[in-house]
Amino acid sequence: MSTQDPFHPKVAQPDHDVIDVIRHRWSPRAFNAALDVTPGELHSLFEAARWAPSSGNEQPWRFVFAHVRRSAEAYEALLASVTPRNRAWARHAPVLVLVAVRSTLERNGALNTHAWYDAGQAVAFLALQATAVGLSVRQMQGFDPALARVACSVPELFEPAVVMAVGRAGDPDLLEIEFHRDAERQPRHRRPIGEFVFHGGWGQPLEG
Amino acid sequence: MSTQDPFHPKVAQPDHDVIDVIRHRWSPRAFNAALDVTPGELHSLFEAARWAPSSGNEQPWRFVFAHVRRSAEAYEALLASVTPRNRAWARHAPVLVLVAVRSTLERNGALNTHAWYDAGQAVAFLALQATAVGLSVRQMQGFDPALARVACSVPELFEPAVVMAVGRAGDPDLLEIEFHRDAERQPRHRRPIGEFVFHGGWGQPLEG
Repeated sequence: MSTQDPFHPKVAQPDHDVIDVIRHRWSPRAFNAALDVTPGELHSLFEAARWAPSSGNEQPWRFVFAHVRRSAEAYEALLASVTPRNRAWARHAPVLVLVAVRSTLERNGALNTHAWYDAGQAVAFLALQATAVGLSVRQMQGFDPALARVACSVPELFEPAVVMAVGRAGDPDLLEIEFHRDAERQPRHRRPIGEFVFHGGWGQPLEG
Repeated sequence: MSTQDPFHPKVAQPDHDVIDVIRHRWSPRAFNAALDVTPGELHSLFEAARWAPSSGNEQPWRFVFAHVRRSAEAYEALLASVTPRNRAWARHAPVLVLVAVRSTLERNGALNTHAWYDAGQAVAFLALQATAVGLSVRQMQGFDPALARVACSVPELFEPAVVMAVGRAGDPDLLEIEFHRDAERQPRHRRPIGEFVFHGGWGQPLEG
């Protein structure tokens, strides 16, 4: 089952044309534990994140990754920081990544109001690059930031924001939790743009 | 001057391969006021944002756009909300967009800790789609949220996060401020991934 298949339920069915990497990106819970992620692939993901825009070019994002075998101790510690429900599927992904955010500006220590927003931009670039190289990413908000901080030795100045699983999409039937198996086959839902885009003022119809 | 030119100073020179839309995306200040943005192009940008991932699929992003002629009053009001330095260049972009974020969860009104992060992801998708269709986006943190709220009638539940200019990149020589003209020709700088990606624990070298 590949998202290269246009009838895969997770390929977006957009109302307006969008680029292929956006159409084909989705967030699986089913990862194939037998398929590894190479260092070169990981480098391309982080390189993509690197070129994201950020307010004042602060680049407030940091990443700590752990590989199930090459850095097994860190992998287990980071895995232990996610909720049990996330752990049930995430443990099949060969790579886990902690996204950490510097919430203060480097030049003066003042609050960077857009640090999390910019980290989101970087991870979005990373996720699309992953799609392009045949990898999948699922981000988790469901984790304990204090545990993740200890697992990855994150300094005080930075905040753990997200843990993400990186690997190749796998067989939904191998997921332990029924809801997860089912979710993997449901079509994707999003608000149509007419519900979140307004022209000329809030609530006014999108007309171009 | 087009970013299709591989020697354009704003085309990223990555250390590792990344997809073309990431290499060619950059944030100009010089927009060509003579080149319009069509409704169809705008729809594709918002459609791209639509398919971004978000925590719990909240899709906390909203957009209010204004066109210099088709919604001139809103355009002027939104333009007036940005700092004078931003106004100097942004006024040449045919479209301005306010990004607003719902910081509470729809299901229970609790704080959505990842709302801004997720809005950043949506705008990142939008910016890459823009690159694919020949448009450019520059985001501004330098604006007055209270003025933008009034300009776009943003309800209390939502927070103005960013104002962005959308259009086609233009001639740097037409920019009024010398610093802006110069910046438009400088090569782009980013930390190499070895400085913001760690393997197995904070500060440990990236080795794959």
